[in-house]
Amino acid sequence: MDEFGLIERYFKPLSTGFSGSLNLSDDAAIISPPPGHELVITKDAISQGVHYLGHESPALIARKLLRTNLSDLAAMGATPLCYFLAVMLPKNTTPEWLESFAQGLQQDQKEFGIHLAGGDTIATLGTPSFSLTALGTVPAGKSLRRGGAQIGDIIYVSDTLGDSALGLMMLQKNIPSPALEQRYYLPEPRLALGQQLLGIAHAAMDISDGLLQDLGHICAQSQVGATLYRDRLPLSEATQALVHQDAALWNAVLSGGDDYELLFTAAPNAPIETLARSLNLRLTAIGEITVENAVRVLDENKNIISVPRKGFAHF
Amino acid sequence: MDEFGLIERYFKPLSTGFSGSLNLSDDAAIISPPPGHELVITKDAISQGVHYLGHESPALIARKLLRTNLSDLAAMGATPLCYFLAVMLPKNTTPEWLESFAQGLQQDQKEFGIHLAGGDTIATLGTPSFSLTALGTVPAGKSLRRGGAQIGDIIYVSDTLGDSALGLMMLQKNIPSPALEQRYYLPEPRLALGQQLLGIAHAAMDISDGLLQDLGHICAQSQVGATLYRDRLPLSEATQALVHQDAALWNAVLSGGDDYELLFTAAPNAPIETLARSLNLRLTAIGEITVENAVRVLDENKNIISVPRKGFAHF
Repeated sequence: MDEFGLIERYFKPLSTGFSGSLNLSDDAAIISPPPGHELVITKDAISQGVHYLGHESPALIARKLLRTNLSDLAAMGATPLCYFLAVMLPKNTTPEWLESFAQGLQQDQKEFGIHLAGGDTIATLGTPSFSLTALGTVPAGKSLRRGGAQIGDIIYVSDTLGDSALGLMMLQKNIPSPALEQRYYLPEPRLALGQQLLGIAHAAMDISDGLLQDLGHICAQSQVGATLYRDRLPLSEATQALVHQDAALWNAVLSGGDDYELLFTAAPNAPIETLARSLNLRLTAIGEITVENAVRVLDENKNIISVPRKGFAHF
Repeated sequence: MDEFGLIERYFKPLSTGFSGSLNLSDDAAIISPPPGHELVITKDAISQGVHYLGHESPALIARKLLRTNLSDLAAMGATPLCYFLAVMLPKNTTPEWLESFAQGLQQDQKEFGIHLAGGDTIATLGTPSFSLTALGTVPAGKSLRRGGAQIGDIIYVSDTLGDSALGLMMLQKNIPSPALEQRYYLPEPRLALGQQLLGIAHAAMDISDGLLQDLGHICAQSQVGATLYRDRLPLSEATQALVHQDAALWNAVLSGGDDYELLFTAAPNAPIETLARSLNLRLTAIGEITVENAVRVLDENKNIISVPRKGFAHF
């Protein structure tokens, strides 16, 4: 099948319903934000053997790729609009593979209200790689940013931490752990939370490189420090059990990648509990923004814990 | 060097001067088209050994990647605004390689007035691949499109055809041919022409997959046919000499890829000659839009030429 056949069969159906895609039949797409809004644009890439294992179903690979980009939109408080996709595949890729990949995109497009607007499909002599550019909209001037944290802010995180890193570890060790695996394969972009935090959070980002490293980014951009209390970090039952067995696994909670939960700061009187109830989503106060130029983690006895590994380094 | 070091050293300098990039320090960029304008967005990917040979200077690879995307913006009549870049590299990539790659981008950013707004840098276990998403702006509702060709329109093409395909052929045969090589390595996005064609051309696109295949796209989208006159096709001196030696090389002119010239149609009374003079750019009438549902090529005696190969198929 040539490139045009691929586009016709697998990708055009994904662009239906979004007029700006021009039905994938022109040189480019045409996009306008709604009046009073601006566009939020993010781009992530993944490559086999580095960002996913390779034996996953293509649908899962596609859904995780879309979701990690949606998580960046969530971190800015944006509402998903459309996305552009570059698919780089070896020549021996089967129609079944493509069918599953496209089906995964279709499924998550419906779930998150986003459409394909354009892209490119190319052959590669190497391993499969993918790049996705996601566009969202946000009321002009209102997007969440990393740089607004204020001294005295409470630091919050959504849902639980460390599950994805531990899920990957269990997969690599061949130990069945469905709940943790699910969190590794299929992150949940916190779009509703991000949108509700507009006007409430002072700073926000999604945790992709590990809690400590990403909180470090918020602190650096905001020129503040932070203190975290390890015993307040929200853990799932599965992660709690693992950490109880082996305290070294706290590193997965503090520095593991791929959480895709929102990390945000807000004033002490911000209505975060109300928000958690209305979204039916766990939002946990895990520390506070300080004047010191450092991120500190305290144990139950308020002693500083030293954490060896600082997030995930790609090179 | 970790990902953040790479961004800091090589990519942040490319985002300077474009405030929407947020200094590459947030989860996403924030973009608004100017009042009365909409955004034109295109995405192309390239992979070593498929889209470039591998021994080129990294600066040339970067510039061609940027220019092929700019050519898509030119085809819509857009003015370049910013771009997002995904760089997928083996772990053993050297700082010298990255330095040259970034220097190539810097050079062409200046030439074409565009800035880096965001992206991703990842490791791959395979060959290097790159994906670029380019954004341009166009007055709302005015962009050039493929679907507007009208029966009786004259078909035009900018500059000369076939040079890039023949340049690649000469490179592969190790025959020095600087003029043709240059056209292969460094296409010229026809941005000024595209912008000037707004309100004049009925249909337009850039030739990336070969004249005949791409004219086929205009005809399909416009539901018309076309007749081309082979002896009117504009050839450079180098290409003319090669075609004179071996008539089979006409295929490179008719179906070779990577021309990145603009192909457009306009009414017979459109001021194309004036435009050519003001831009100091060769614009040649090569045929006309017809009612038949086919693209025909006629030789000097008005006999139909059959053309074996239909453009470049990626898979």
